[in-house]
Amino acid sequence: MADAFDVVVIGGGPAGENAAARAAAGQNPPLSVALVERELLGGECSYWACIPSKALLRPAEAQWLARHAPGLSASVQGALNPREVLRRRDAMVSGYKDDSQLKWAEGAHLHVVRGHARLSGPRTVRVEGQGGTRELTARKAVVLATGSRPRLPELPGLKEARPWDNRGGTAAKEVPRRLVVLGGGVVAVELSQAWRSLGSEVTLVQRGPRLLSRYEPFVGEEVEKALRESGITVLLGTEASRVHRPGGRGEVTVTLSSGGTLQADELLVAMGRVANTAEVGLETVGLTPGKPVEVDDQLRAKGVEGGWLYACGDVNGRNLLTHMGKYQARLAGDHIAGREVRAWADAKATPQVIFTHPQVASVGLTEAQALKQGLRVRAVQYAVGDVAGTALLGKGLGGTAKLVVDESRRVIVGATFTGPGVGELLHAATVAVAGEVPLDTLWHAVPSFPTVSEVWLRLLEAYGL
Amino acid sequence: MADAFDVVVIGGGPAGENAAARAAAGQNPPLSVALVERELLGGECSYWACIPSKALLRPAEAQWLARHAPGLSASVQGALNPREVLRRRDAMVSGYKDDSQLKWAEGAHLHVVRGHARLSGPRTVRVEGQGGTRELTARKAVVLATGSRPRLPELPGLKEARPWDNRGGTAAKEVPRRLVVLGGGVVAVELSQAWRSLGSEVTLVQRGPRLLSRYEPFVGEEVEKALRESGITVLLGTEASRVHRPGGRGEVTVTLSSGGTLQADELLVAMGRVANTAEVGLETVGLTPGKPVEVDDQLRAKGVEGGWLYACGDVNGRNLLTHMGKYQARLAGDHIAGREVRAWADAKATPQVIFTHPQVASVGLTEAQALKQGLRVRAVQYAVGDVAGTALLGKGLGGTAKLVVDESRRVIVGATFTGPGVGELLHAATVAVAGEVPLDTLWHAVPSFPTVSEVWLRLLEAYGL
Repeated sequence: MADAFDVVVIGGGPAGENAAARAAAGQNPPLSVALVERELLGGECSYWACIPSKALLRPAEAQWLARHAPGLSASVQGALNPREVLRRRDAMVSGYKDDSQLKWAEGAHLHVVRGHARLSGPRTVRVEGQGGTRELTARKAVVLATGSRPRLPELPGLKEARPWDNRGGTAAKEVPRRLVVLGGGVVAVELSQAWRSLGSEVTLVQRGPRLLSRYEPFVGEEVEKALRESGITVLLGTEASRVHRPGGRGEVTVTLSSGGTLQADELLVAMGRVANTAEVGLETVGLTPGKPVEVDDQLRAKGVEGGWLYACGDVNGRNLLTHMGKYQARLAGDHIAGREVRAWADAKATPQVIFTHPQVASVGLTEAQALKQGLRVRAVQYAVGDVAGTALLGKGLGGTAKLVVDESRRVIVGATFTGPGVGELLHAATVAVAGEVPLDTLWHAVPSFPTVSEVWLRLLEAYGL
Repeated sequence: MADAFDVVVIGGGPAGENAAARAAAGQNPPLSVALVERELLGGECSYWACIPSKALLRPAEAQWLARHAPGLSASVQGALNPREVLRRRDAMVSGYKDDSQLKWAEGAHLHVVRGHARLSGPRTVRVEGQGGTRELTARKAVVLATGSRPRLPELPGLKEARPWDNRGGTAAKEVPRRLVVLGGGVVAVELSQAWRSLGSEVTLVQRGPRLLSRYEPFVGEEVEKALRESGITVLLGTEASRVHRPGGRGEVTVTLSSGGTLQADELLVAMGRVANTAEVGLETVGLTPGKPVEVDDQLRAKGVEGGWLYACGDVNGRNLLTHMGKYQARLAGDHIAGREVRAWADAKATPQVIFTHPQVASVGLTEAQALKQGLRVRAVQYAVGDVAGTALLGKGLGGTAKLVVDESRRVIVGATFTGPGVGELLHAATVAVAGEVPLDTLWHAVPSFPTVSEVWLRLLEAYGL
């Protein structure tokens, strides 16, 4: 017999949880909502991505700031105490248990179902769990929030070497003496810096000519410099051609396209992610498995009749970022509950912070992206280190701030900052971009002296205000 | 013979410098501008206020964050190295020399005049300097930017005790073993914490029942708690009734209204400031000396015919904050150069950061101020420590975030934050308040996960979005 709910949510990560909770709370009487999760409620972010990676990284950032602080620097040379950092990481991931999330879900009146869910036709979901198979039907909507998984490149010997992905790279119980990292994106640079701060010798191998290539060009240059200064070996324009690790443990040898080899104790692969849509029954509702599920601005899957299937988070390929998945999920949940919504921030005002030191923070379009979209833009740039608020943090802290202005409307369409504390400074740009606050109004939004945020004043002056 | 300029600016602090530079650069051919300063170009802020106080404080904040950071805390117990911090302070105030500011002024084509300037009638300024007396005339405008000075209360023995004010309190060459601070405002709490971090035993004596009384009530409570935890003795509802220090040096004894006494090696008085208008010749143009110069929204002194006299910064009493003085000065300079301006941010969107740890950041109205203005407001509050981004900085870091929403327009009219990093997070609120960004748009300004800024999402959820 089928269990009937108003809403069935597949995937209990941040997106699934938010969609479920908003749908459940959005009507009176409340909608009944089933939330199906095959692993841990809270998802990748809570246990194997954002949370543990930042738990590993943020102490290193505090150390970096302390090293620059007059009167303090001598105390904080050398590596962090790895045991304490790893213990804090364990605490932040709740020992890889989801009891507190379960409690939260119950408080939100969600019906939690454990198991692997697949669509089995319109509005029906089959769940294989420990207790056997259960069939759920959804009177109003099914929300797909199954996230993504690491992409493992085709490379001889790689799979057999049992490399770290984001899970191994955030959950390790010991600090490897030598770590090789394949990749040059956010996960690669963040985890390189994290393990370096705990004492590893790190070599980062990046195929392309620069790191963080999706960002403004200065981003990759500045992060590369910081990685090198911390003792990380950065190999650009270099590919791994084969990997050798007998038995999938112990020393691993990475052969490079250049002919050389690297020896390490662990190998981390951080070369992108793929949407988890291969095994969720998309074929039963006329969609193609293995590809992101394309959605409209109400987060409904395109090409599914009746508008009952929603997809939020990594699975729809819009933005592989926890906060944007949650954003989509809030709107999807509200829409299911009968509110009018339009998800416009994905295309226009997506923020991201890279928690390296220096931090990287960006929102909206890069100058190159804006030009490609045919916008008539003008960009202005200012050195973050030339602001008094930065100098007061200590000598030698710098960074760059850049605004991309749509000249036809005199509004900011993109902003990028590097430097100390810019991760918090970013939200000002997100509000300005999302709110389309005109430059002439921003001129009256005075940054406090002496903060790093005063770079806003300098940028507007540079623009000519 | 009189020297004639288009513009004469009296006072070369941040406000005067900005007014002068904007006026000089705002027309083609450029206006000729004289900038008169009796002490150091750069003013109180650069040598005896914002800059040195933050140079003393920010290392202590880095230490506080490091103490909370897992894997680092053991390294950073104990006091900072005072010698290094004081040396950095000296560097940040350029050794109390204004050579670089002079160079900047020359680059901005300003005519720098050294000496004490007084108005001597409409559009005329008399300067007494080392080389004698000079009379300047201004064809277009005179800008008064003479700032403020500390208010010394009437207290038996106080003057003779030669107490520290903001100058002594930021410029000291040695760390006093025992320091008594009179006052409970920004200068009092910041300098108490700064000297405590360098090793002083500090006692703060505050007349009123709480610290920082102009802010939301939780601000004073949280800062008081932090001061106490760092070992500072905080005496509330307590007044000094007399001060005794023979010869104005050595041990100082402060007698309290309660009858007890305090012994200290230095005494800091931080009990407000008064506008520097007593000796600038206001009487020669029909204004009253000793009171702030009231101005209109173009920064022109009210009651002066012809609109030739401007007043910017502390001297007009609008907002005793460097960044607001500079803001006013930019607008005044532009207005003199023929641009239309309106200084509306003073009343509506004045931001301020208190650089204690935890930081305090606020903009616009407190709830109490909004109610007093007759606005129909609703306030929402959220614990900053409950945000993942805060927890990731370490255990036990908290704070409070509060938004004051004007219900009739659904825009934010005030915001206050306490906690780590909120000084940079503030500018988002300043943009939202100044830009009157509707709540329903702010709902699409997504904070990055996991930053402290995610408290924005929680606040909007708490509001009911």
